[in-house]
Amino acid sequence: MRTIEWISHSGFVRLIDQRKLPNRLEYLVIHNAVEMADAIQSMAIRGAPAIGVAGAFGLVLEVQELKTQHSSELRGYLRKAGDLLISARPTAVNLSWGVNRILKVVDDLSIPEDQLEPAMRLESEKMAEEDIATNLRMAEFGASLICDGDTIIHHCNTGSLAAVDWGTALGAIRFAFEHGKKVHLLIDETRPRFQGARLTAWECQQYGIPFEVIPDNAAGYFIHRGDVQKVMFGSDRVAANGDVVNKVGTYMLSLAAHADNIPVYPVFPFTTLDVSIPSGEQIPIEERPAEEVTAISFQGEAVYPAGAAVRNPAFDITPNELITAWVTDRGIIYPPFSQNLTQCYHINASSR
Amino acid sequence: MRTIEWISHSGFVRLIDQRKLPNRLEYLVIHNAVEMADAIQSMAIRGAPAIGVAGAFGLVLEVQELKTQHSSELRGYLRKAGDLLISARPTAVNLSWGVNRILKVVDDLSIPEDQLEPAMRLESEKMAEEDIATNLRMAEFGASLICDGDTIIHHCNTGSLAAVDWGTALGAIRFAFEHGKKVHLLIDETRPRFQGARLTAWECQQYGIPFEVIPDNAAGYFIHRGDVQKVMFGSDRVAANGDVVNKVGTYMLSLAAHADNIPVYPVFPFTTLDVSIPSGEQIPIEERPAEEVTAISFQGEAVYPAGAAVRNPAFDITPNELITAWVTDRGIIYPPFSQNLTQCYHINASSR
Repeated sequence: MRTIEWISHSGFVRLIDQRKLPNRLEYLVIHNAVEMADAIQSMAIRGAPAIGVAGAFGLVLEVQELKTQHSSELRGYLRKAGDLLISARPTAVNLSWGVNRILKVVDDLSIPEDQLEPAMRLESEKMAEEDIATNLRMAEFGASLICDGDTIIHHCNTGSLAAVDWGTALGAIRFAFEHGKKVHLLIDETRPRFQGARLTAWECQQYGIPFEVIPDNAAGYFIHRGDVQKVMFGSDRVAANGDVVNKVGTYMLSLAAHADNIPVYPVFPFTTLDVSIPSGEQIPIEERPAEEVTAISFQGEAVYPAGAAVRNPAFDITPNELITAWVTDRGIIYPPFSQNLTQCYHINASSR
Repeated sequence: MRTIEWISHSGFVRLIDQRKLPNRLEYLVIHNAVEMADAIQSMAIRGAPAIGVAGAFGLVLEVQELKTQHSSELRGYLRKAGDLLISARPTAVNLSWGVNRILKVVDDLSIPEDQLEPAMRLESEKMAEEDIATNLRMAEFGASLICDGDTIIHHCNTGSLAAVDWGTALGAIRFAFEHGKKVHLLIDETRPRFQGARLTAWECQQYGIPFEVIPDNAAGYFIHRGDVQKVMFGSDRVAANGDVVNKVGTYMLSLAAHADNIPVYPVFPFTTLDVSIPSGEQIPIEERPAEEVTAISFQGEAVYPAGAAVRNPAFDITPNELITAWVTDRGIIYPPFSQNLTQCYHINASSR
């Protein structure tokens, strides 16, 4: 099961429509950048690593569509399509990273225009393969922190569905589980879109990982009772000082864990790190439509009174002092992050 | 609008069925203790002060029904009905307080059996009137803490619907608003039953109080941004050391407020204080059925995969060190609570 992949015979991209899970496993076929931007914006595909690859694939679809029509202005059109894709979600840095990686090919004037398409496609497929390898490294590093018998609170969805395969935090948990460690998950349901209840619970059912879903606001109760040994989640953008921007609710969960000395581990690839941003407060936080919060019913009845105003920030900022360690594809990094990050960054710069 | 009241011509009790709000204002007519216990257990009526009065009324309904059948064992049957009512919700102390207050009349052997019904009814009506007066005093004390222009995060429902009238925290906010202070509420939607989105938002629409509803897990984001000046909520039971048991999510909200030095005010009548319980950890926390969490749909689709295990604690425990002050009907009480409580308790013991 791949979250996103090329349909080889058609040249189009197929992705799991995550809005339909857990009720139906349906696929969307995407033909161009506009459709891809819409799929990202509407969260048919979501998860920081996944939308990085989706953005890259979107640009390759666009060059396929454009090459016959606008050959003279091809590079300019592709740059515009790149802007469109990047603007679909402003917070996760992987999206712009993925698109910009393909735009580097577009901007390489040594590649003739009629060779752009295969070069871009090759690069995008490399990215997808790298994503799986990167996630598997993170999974192995993350699993090393998990003890046999741990109960872990997990926020949002960070499994295969959040990436091309494996994912970040849930990948680490799955790796530990598949290598014989007993784990039990408390899955935050993750309002407003319920990625925990809809996607993480569904993935855990596929893998056989034991779990219970909890309302997000019950996490503190279980932590303070002593029922929880670890807190793990993914990240959408990490600032140079170690502040982590992730799905809304991560901050309050981390506060609760920190208050009881429970380790807090964000799991993310180095591509999620944005060293150009000094602290989390400078990261733009996407506010999504009110309908995303209000489009629910409880016991068959509408929940929100007509005309009720709603706020819907999609992310929040967890200050670095609440984070025990980063789990990345380059290893586990402990505070002080800004210092240890620099060392790690330089040591590994050649392999990047 | 009274949450609960006697229907004078019929001798039965009418209460607003809060499961139907905000879509329909429907009433339930209650004829005996079993029906009342069911209404409390199913949360047709909820809120610590309201279920105290509901328990008392339930016992009076029972004496009406029983008096013709079991006159010789009337007191014994009433005690059993009291046990049934108290067991409907184990956490909120007001329920057992309300029932026990009527049982004192039952146990007063100077009252002949044929005079029990009018004596119990008089006591229950006194309780309902006292509840309104008590809440109005809390509202005035609480309003004195609210500044013109405050944005306040409010958890669950603590308005008229949680009491006979006025309520606790929302009563204080309404009092401030009706006396000319500009306030803006951020209403936690309050998973799993959405009392914030369904009931508090609806009440605020009636009063004209400006508000926005937020997912519970977004509260920390707004607090840390500096958008919030106060956090207010009710309480279901308060221990002698000042720990507050209230609707699940209160603890994480209080942690977030405390981390940014935002005042945290539980608002509750002295009857919510249980001095027999040394700390919050000894208070029983009700776990409610999984169906209460899973009976939702999002964008028209079921959210939970079939067979997903769920945990549903209805309350959590907020340690006293996160509480800025208690707002009670006997005034505003600051830490150290166990010390200041004792003084207040003795000073006011005669008026109790």
